[in-house]
Amino acid sequence: MKAFIIYDTPEHNPNLLYWGRFTAPDPFLAIKVGNKTIAFVSSLEYGRCKQTSRFNEVYLLSDVRKHFEKNAPFWLSFFKFLQRQFDVDTFIVPDDFPASIYAQIVNQIPIEFDAAAFNQQRACKTDDEKAEIKKACQLASRTITFAKDILQTSDVKDGALFFDNQPLTSEALRGRMEIYCLEHGGYATDTIVAGGQDATNPHCVGHGVLRANQLIVIDFFPRLQHSHYYGDMTRTFIKGKASKEQADMYCCVQDCQRALIAQVKAGVLTSTLMAFATQFFEERGYGLKQSEQSYQGFIHSVGHGLGLNLHEYPSISTRPIRLEPGMVITIEPGLYFNEVGGVRIEDDVYVTEDGCELLSRCNYDFEL
Amino acid sequence: MKAFIIYDTPEHNPNLLYWGRFTAPDPFLAIKVGNKTIAFVSSLEYGRCKQTSRFNEVYLLSDVRKHFEKNAPFWLSFFKFLQRQFDVDTFIVPDDFPASIYAQIVNQIPIEFDAAAFNQQRACKTDDEKAEIKKACQLASRTITFAKDILQTSDVKDGALFFDNQPLTSEALRGRMEIYCLEHGGYATDTIVAGGQDATNPHCVGHGVLRANQLIVIDFFPRLQHSHYYGDMTRTFIKGKASKEQADMYCCVQDCQRALIAQVKAGVLTSTLMAFATQFFEERGYGLKQSEQSYQGFIHSVGHGLGLNLHEYPSISTRPIRLEPGMVITIEPGLYFNEVGGVRIEDDVYVTEDGCELLSRCNYDFEL
Repeated sequence: MKAFIIYDTPEHNPNLLYWGRFTAPDPFLAIKVGNKTIAFVSSLEYGRCKQTSRFNEVYLLSDVRKHFEKNAPFWLSFFKFLQRQFDVDTFIVPDDFPASIYAQIVNQIPIEFDAAAFNQQRACKTDDEKAEIKKACQLASRTITFAKDILQTSDVKDGALFFDNQPLTSEALRGRMEIYCLEHGGYATDTIVAGGQDATNPHCVGHGVLRANQLIVIDFFPRLQHSHYYGDMTRTFIKGKASKEQADMYCCVQDCQRALIAQVKAGVLTSTLMAFATQFFEERGYGLKQSEQSYQGFIHSVGHGLGLNLHEYPSISTRPIRLEPGMVITIEPGLYFNEVGGVRIEDDVYVTEDGCELLSRCNYDFEL
Repeated sequence: MKAFIIYDTPEHNPNLLYWGRFTAPDPFLAIKVGNKTIAFVSSLEYGRCKQTSRFNEVYLLSDVRKHFEKNAPFWLSFFKFLQRQFDVDTFIVPDDFPASIYAQIVNQIPIEFDAAAFNQQRACKTDDEKAEIKKACQLASRTITFAKDILQTSDVKDGALFFDNQPLTSEALRGRMEIYCLEHGGYATDTIVAGGQDATNPHCVGHGVLRANQLIVIDFFPRLQHSHYYGDMTRTFIKGKASKEQADMYCCVQDCQRALIAQVKAGVLTSTLMAFATQFFEERGYGLKQSEQSYQGFIHSVGHGLGLNLHEYPSISTRPIRLEPGMVITIEPGLYFNEVGGVRIEDDVYVTEDGCELLSRCNYDFEL
């Protein structure tokens, strides 16, 4: 019998969260044998885990310890107990299984890595999961619209944006968005509201006063409070009139994103989408440009899987992975050039046999 | 030369955050040789990491790869490169270093676990860190006071609490607290607002309408948005008049917490504090009680270290660790009995040579 093993916190390991739908601040061990999931927890978590989790069985760690060999190392005894108890031939662990545990048992316990097998457990979403991700996308869409309304109604004085008679900073707009999200059932942190040069770094969250006539990237990725599913959307705005360079770059990213979404269906390779986007931008004159301090152009991947984790399998990058019906992925091409600014447009799609379904609906208003 | 190695995200590994004061959503490798920290990042993070992080050096991963042996496994080549480049004899990794990387290199690269050495890097806080934790505690204190005011001004109808003419639920109070926190510079998620039976499970976040005459545990642990430092405080309230059992249990926990704080100073063993609390509760008639579904009594540890992580070294539990000047720890005894409810009181202290300094100041009002 093969058994999957995780030792982690549910917050850090979405597979563990998926098995038990149970959160706890400290790591614990869980095993999946056949279709059965079993958790081993401390007395602190035992009652709550038994009553509220979806684990098929919950063991109290201190009870289990009584069956361990005397004077043997803890983890070795634990895995030998699991071997006996569940008739396990081989333990399958995730790539980021703790090396200190691995080192203690590897010479006496058959243990293998199989990231793919773990990935497969959550890659294709059930209807319930799809519905949750769609809800998270709706929240993302409403919050981005809320932010857009603030940009739209803000005033411009000497090129700086003002809202409620205060300078409108990245920090202030991020704060308003995150509060709005919290009020509507989601958690959001480290929201990207990046204008001007900040927007040329795709992971810069943005700082200081937002200004007219500069590209402003808003990347928002709320987690639903009740179900822990994520949505992930990006829109790019400009307050005022875009220059020709800004408008051209925006149109190019939008065209690319549309063309990518049109290609998504079961059977397509992720690497095909990545190659398409790279070539698309090159042909339009936006090829990669290397400077001393940074790379400019299309400097990230096309997207990533989305679900109980924000970035999950499959990555839509150069490594070929075949899309399967039920996968939910982001499509988020972007361009970043120091002299023009940054543009990224991101939506979330559900892969079907003959295409994909757009889960994140929000218009593409640009000039506000 | 020894070198410390981390491969993780800064969000999951506070040591990595400590080295670079840089956040990124995907894992990357960083090394500490002597006093120098060096990060290896993708083109996506390179510019931002070079400009904004505190790493002494930042390498672009694709540049470094050019120096790898041809046809050798990636991680093996990477570590051999690090050996040559930084003259490394032994690599020290954290306990939760990814086992899949460890397995690829362990036969050819000298690699050791030394959790203590990693813990020591952040265990004693600098004055700046102490100031940040104190700010986070002030935010926690203000938010708990905000919640207390809501409980205090709520109405009671048929035993249920009402606020703003709405039933006051755990969810609603948690939401208001987390919004208040966000408005004042902190991130808070999964805040515990647990009344009645919910409060007997220390990690139950709480659900449904709060009621008069039941113990309500509020455990609040905000992270400062700008610096990532945590505060962690718990207060227990009752709306209305406490029964003799409730009041006695509250007084017992408060007496225990006071006595624990009075004992904290450099040189004291964490296990001494744990043994003290266990014995204190037993002598007062609140010894551990085992039922079929759960454990009742003092069912967790006395506390934990606090800083860039919510739960960090040292744990104030049965394993003896000597307190050192500059450590910041929580002191949070609690009692949980199904027939009475739950009580926990938690403060954060800064360990000094001859005592400790209370960082979390908030009164201990109980009956509201």
